[in-house]
Amino acid sequence: MRGAVLYAPGDVRFEERDEPQILKPTDAVIRTVATCVCGSDLWNYRGINPTDQPTPFGHEYVGVVEEVGDEVRAIRPGQFVVGSFFASDNTCPNCRNGYQTNCLHREFVGAGGCQAERIRIPLADGTLVATPEPPSADLVPSLLACSDVMGTGWYAAAAAHVQPGDTVAVVGDGAVGLCAVIAAKQMGAERIIAMSRHASRQSLAREFGATDIVAERGEDGAARIKEMTGGIGADRVLECVGDANSMRQALRSARPGGNVGFVGVPHGVEIEGTELFYSHVGLRGGPAPVRQYLPRLIDLVLAGAINPGKVFDLHLPLSQVAEGYRAMDERRAIKALLTP
Amino acid sequence: MRGAVLYAPGDVRFEERDEPQILKPTDAVIRTVATCVCGSDLWNYRGINPTDQPTPFGHEYVGVVEEVGDEVRAIRPGQFVVGSFFASDNTCPNCRNGYQTNCLHREFVGAGGCQAERIRIPLADGTLVATPEPPSADLVPSLLACSDVMGTGWYAAAAAHVQPGDTVAVVGDGAVGLCAVIAAKQMGAERIIAMSRHASRQSLAREFGATDIVAERGEDGAARIKEMTGGIGADRVLECVGDANSMRQALRSARPGGNVGFVGVPHGVEIEGTELFYSHVGLRGGPAPVRQYLPRLIDLVLAGAINPGKVFDLHLPLSQVAEGYRAMDERRAIKALLTP
Repeated sequence: MRGAVLYAPGDVRFEERDEPQILKPTDAVIRTVATCVCGSDLWNYRGINPTDQPTPFGHEYVGVVEEVGDEVRAIRPGQFVVGSFFASDNTCPNCRNGYQTNCLHREFVGAGGCQAERIRIPLADGTLVATPEPPSADLVPSLLACSDVMGTGWYAAAAAHVQPGDTVAVVGDGAVGLCAVIAAKQMGAERIIAMSRHASRQSLAREFGATDIVAERGEDGAARIKEMTGGIGADRVLECVGDANSMRQALRSARPGGNVGFVGVPHGVEIEGTELFYSHVGLRGGPAPVRQYLPRLIDLVLAGAINPGKVFDLHLPLSQVAEGYRAMDERRAIKALLTP
Repeated sequence: MRGAVLYAPGDVRFEERDEPQILKPTDAVIRTVATCVCGSDLWNYRGINPTDQPTPFGHEYVGVVEEVGDEVRAIRPGQFVVGSFFASDNTCPNCRNGYQTNCLHREFVGAGGCQAERIRIPLADGTLVATPEPPSADLVPSLLACSDVMGTGWYAAAAAHVQPGDTVAVVGDGAVGLCAVIAAKQMGAERIIAMSRHASRQSLAREFGATDIVAERGEDGAARIKEMTGGIGADRVLECVGDANSMRQALRSARPGGNVGFVGVPHGVEIEGTELFYSHVGLRGGPAPVRQYLPRLIDLVLAGAINPGKVFDLHLPLSQVAEGYRAMDERRAIKALLTP
């Protein structure tokens, strides 16, 4: 089978790779229906994270189950499934607490490279969620979004304790930030301020439920949020970028007693204890426990209540995966969907 | 009147100072019934925080109202009152959100020096809470504790979202840490692990509700907590020290999805974004909004449900305030109570 391999910064190749196999009795192998490029893949594509050797890439996927190991019970061949980027047993104490991405037996599904025609899924029963029946083609992008960006946007809002009536600011207008707007809306936020300076992203943010747009960044952005909230800051701020500036902007945009949920994988982020202390801001982040949210998110997609698939503004054949990376790197696309 | 003045590290003097006055129509002046030395005063006493000029000291107090300004409505001369170390109007948006120590009009009551015979209290209506009647002498230490350490321990537990049934670890066995044990117990924690290596403090922690004692510190302490909690960590951790080691110990003692409430004033604390991210731990700290909790805490004290005054293991006349600092600095005393 064929799949994407990152050789070096800017060098993604689509090439023949080993066929994935059932290695453990709890594994499944799926035939990929759709996969995509993640904003976090760009850290490597841009050389900010090192790439020491040719590395299979991608960690988002929906597909049809082809084969399962002897101990797999809930998942069956033929099912259409959505899964999380971290495999989890869904039974350990951390999973039961709702933090499947901290499962005591977690494995990174992306280690095998999901931008490929077929994928090995460890701990299939605890990782995959099947749809009641095969979805129509138009729902596939939104179901794919649930496997990471929509789940991650949801966690940003959940980690920040978004409540009905809240004023929520979203830092970052990438696919995750836009999905965080959907999540805030679903959780009942009254005012949703998208921080964005790109017309097309502003427009999608509004379509997803943003009530206000703030184009300013950094200190100016935080000052603008305070100005809009009676001088105190937003109740909840969703940090969807992951660098030192965006984190500072997020923390300074939240009111005393407010919360920041941070889901951008941190790069160079240090939080100064004294500033955090006097801010009274609550902070929680991490890799989103997508598996916790999948049943609900799939229901919302199938009911037509949310349509996060709109973040895919570029659809390409999987063979053109390199163009997907380029388009996102150059910010010509929000997010590239790839179909084998 | 006379009061404490810090001249330099280790040099606290009890001397004649100006009589406090009503400076604004929202002020009150109280006659001090009891005051005390705070762990945070030691940062200055030890020279870790600089002292540039002779500085009146202390920020914890209970007293009897002597005089009020023209705009004071709820507070009346003759009342016995407990107040917070930050004066607050109790009406601004931050106060209404329960964060009175971030009041838009806050003033640090300690700026005037509360280790004194009389104290000016700004924003008296929003800062002070009167008891229904003058308390008996034996209740005075516990009411005094409410003005800071008990309120701060309560906030540590509230900021960490302690829930009934939780396992809670407390880092720090000073007066605040011990009061945090009381708070965790009141909030229904099932297991309370006090991290302490001093016999007398361990014993008071047990009396306040600790079910377990862990003497190990740092990495060893965190490892011990994980060992005691099925390998995952405590549901909630209350950080009551404020240095880099104690914060690290606290963060590493909490389970994924757990919380750290931090109330030790940070000194040299930097939180690494990547570690916080992958930990899934929620974090909130700050100067405790004591004013929010005072009505409830006073009720609990008057009902005999809590007895935080036991943290005062040294009672001295106010004139011997220097000895109070010395005894706490040398850890001969947990906390020194001073009466004029």
